[in-house]
Amino acid sequence: MSIDAVLTELEPVLGDRISRSKSDLETHGGSETHFPAAPPDAVVFPETTEEVSRIVAACNRFGVPVIPFGAGTSLEGHTSAIHGGITIDTVRMNKLIRVSPGDMDAVLQPGVTREALNNELRATGLFFSVDPGANASLGGMAGTRASGTTSVRYGTMRDNVLALEVVLADGRVIRTGTRARKSSAGYDLTGLMLGSEGTLGIITELTVKLHGQPEAISAGLCAFDEMGDAVDAVVAVIQTGLPMARIEFLDAEAVAAVNAYSGASVPEKPHLFVEFHGTEAGVAEDAARFGEIVADFGATGVETATRTEDRTALWTMRHHAYYACLAARPGARGLVTDVCVPISNLAEAVEETREDIAASIIPGPILGHVGDGNFHAILLVDPSQPADLEAAKRLAASMSERALRLGGTVTGEHGIGMGKLAYMEAEHGDAWDIMHDIKMALDPKNILNPGKMIRQTP
Amino acid sequence: MSIDAVLTELEPVLGDRISRSKSDLETHGGSETHFPAAPPDAVVFPETTEEVSRIVAACNRFGVPVIPFGAGTSLEGHTSAIHGGITIDTVRMNKLIRVSPGDMDAVLQPGVTREALNNELRATGLFFSVDPGANASLGGMAGTRASGTTSVRYGTMRDNVLALEVVLADGRVIRTGTRARKSSAGYDLTGLMLGSEGTLGIITELTVKLHGQPEAISAGLCAFDEMGDAVDAVVAVIQTGLPMARIEFLDAEAVAAVNAYSGASVPEKPHLFVEFHGTEAGVAEDAARFGEIVADFGATGVETATRTEDRTALWTMRHHAYYACLAARPGARGLVTDVCVPISNLAEAVEETREDIAASIIPGPILGHVGDGNFHAILLVDPSQPADLEAAKRLAASMSERALRLGGTVTGEHGIGMGKLAYMEAEHGDAWDIMHDIKMALDPKNILNPGKMIRQTP
Repeated sequence: MSIDAVLTELEPVLGDRISRSKSDLETHGGSETHFPAAPPDAVVFPETTEEVSRIVAACNRFGVPVIPFGAGTSLEGHTSAIHGGITIDTVRMNKLIRVSPGDMDAVLQPGVTREALNNELRATGLFFSVDPGANASLGGMAGTRASGTTSVRYGTMRDNVLALEVVLADGRVIRTGTRARKSSAGYDLTGLMLGSEGTLGIITELTVKLHGQPEAISAGLCAFDEMGDAVDAVVAVIQTGLPMARIEFLDAEAVAAVNAYSGASVPEKPHLFVEFHGTEAGVAEDAARFGEIVADFGATGVETATRTEDRTALWTMRHHAYYACLAARPGARGLVTDVCVPISNLAEAVEETREDIAASIIPGPILGHVGDGNFHAILLVDPSQPADLEAAKRLAASMSERALRLGGTVTGEHGIGMGKLAYMEAEHGDAWDIMHDIKMALDPKNILNPGKMIRQTP
Repeated sequence: MSIDAVLTELEPVLGDRISRSKSDLETHGGSETHFPAAPPDAVVFPETTEEVSRIVAACNRFGVPVIPFGAGTSLEGHTSAIHGGITIDTVRMNKLIRVSPGDMDAVLQPGVTREALNNELRATGLFFSVDPGANASLGGMAGTRASGTTSVRYGTMRDNVLALEVVLADGRVIRTGTRARKSSAGYDLTGLMLGSEGTLGIITELTVKLHGQPEAISAGLCAFDEMGDAVDAVVAVIQTGLPMARIEFLDAEAVAAVNAYSGASVPEKPHLFVEFHGTEAGVAEDAARFGEIVADFGATGVETATRTEDRTALWTMRHHAYYACLAARPGARGLVTDVCVPISNLAEAVEETREDIAASIIPGPILGHVGDGNFHAILLVDPSQPADLEAAKRLAASMSERALRLGGTVTGEHGIGMGKLAYMEAEHGDAWDIMHDIKMALDPKNILNPGKMIRQTP
């Protein structure tokens, strides 16, 4: 069998860093959410680019699928080994290779996690800004073009990766981009690899931008009677150029869940959570201006927190929202889906979603990165009730269709994986065929995360 | 002849919007700088996407080259019709299709120029931020992934284009991206098209981000004895997170040229020009903080201008720097070249370039977008002296090689065109072959701006 041939070839290279244990196969074939188990035939744990190159070249020769795996926090089944093959777990590729404070960049292996990176950076006065919530690996975040709460100010992975080292399908190693902050030298291969979900190459090194830790931070929250007013207020704030570092929306149901989970007593209305980064005087002025603007849109209960402990308490509420929502329905699993729309259509998108969920058999709090037009529904499914999962899937489908109708995208930050493949044609039309052409040019044997991203031929 | 066959087919579609006049061919085959004339066989002036699709499809059938042409302000010979063919001039595709103040975006045809766009936007309180200096077309700026003085705050074309409509080599029309601010839905084809210089498709529509006009602007300048101190000061300012809207470097020679041209009397030393955007109080604080930080690096003559006329006077000096430099050598033409390096290597890159130019037979002031690590040499060539052009080319070559040695790129914003093709292999290595594979997948007959960007087979 071809998998055995590959492993025989790799054994002298990797030794005991090849696993076919049941638990390893199950862990790597599972998912955070609802996708059925699809284990690989083997899991390998390389430590170097050279080893990854050897693995991929061997798989290419024998036509064996290769699936990259980071921290396993993907929400759309990106790492499911639906055609078997070999999963490359990057957990041992966890070296921070270089930090350059003068250039505010760092070079690292793909298995470094977001939290590990920021822990290592703490003493430098710099931080890595992209925060998807989960403690994802940087390689996985690059593969899905992840973003999060701070993207409204600091950008997504697309904005924060300067350069990549990538192992191609035939084992060749290329470098894309440079350490310069910008370039007009040729096709943007870095951008092409970001978000390609392991289907065009395996990322083995990243050069990322860092940002200076702000001297002062001010956070706050406020309530609105209507979701639409909250969104209109955000649009007005953005137009004044006030540089919000985060601006998050929670619907009344999400606030209720957070209250129940953390013992808080925030009014159960739609809320905005906001944060400003800058100098002491600057953030105070920003917070005051924010307060004035949102007041024009009927905001109430405006609170500002500048002390670290108060800010932490506020953002802990937001960061625990996922667990709070899960706890709101004991025993439930979350089908977490995201879409992103032009901000002027956000209120409509959220309100229709809200009504859809209300009419369904399952609960589903909504929250999102309102400054980007990006929101999530945490659809709460009782695993013992097949009808629940069907209802959640129908709601997620309606959200995607609605996002496209409103000029948006079926995923702002979670990616395509298994969960959104059915919408690629609707979102991209003929451009999806171009993605297929590029995939075939770079991976003619279709060994890299097969079954994902492009149109599947029967 | 195939060109005649194409034109016969297009005549019923375009009528008198096909030109074979000597002056049109010369204008479209010329360049802003030193490249030899390479006129096309015909120039066409479409007005719609449908017409562009018909043109490209006909050229594809007959194997005739197609070269897109915007405002003709390219500095690297991008529009030279080195294999003849048909130039598509987008001057009549100059409609601003839609402005959405709520979403802060606009949809426009590629022939809209930067100045025309900002004139149309004036009443909305919004502006389009990318400013390469020249009054380039938006299509051309997208094609070269242009940037400029404000990119340190607002980003490059890569950051400010949300979506494109593109005519592919076979005439198919695709849409890339959506109006959502971010997306994780598949390969980033928008990013792939930006900077592809007309070799992968013809851009027929752009959706661009707009920004709110700042409530207050503060500008200023300061002098340093040494270039290195100026750069170190900028690094320190960036690390504090002070949001500079522009931060420009002029060397002593550029300052001297500006003085002579505009009758100013700025000390003839390396200078930084800076600008802050925000609220009245915010920009005052930013300017004060800037002054404190640069003082630590030996800055002198720190001046701040908040009144519009004073700011205009200051930036007019900077914006006229190119003409001021040309005027410094009467009768000269400028060979303008740009490179971009990690900012910690910028002082070294500029100083070595300065020494190189001093040892050559021609003058060449240096200026740049120091916050990005991007700088330009305006190499002043007497057109009657062939040795001058040779010297300028040697200097440009050394700059490119030095940029690569220092971890940078051979062009930060001007693009590859004819001028930088020789450095693609050195900058990209095997990744250049991947660009070739993508080009062949999308344009198998190699009709789109042939002779550019990819490795040329003999």
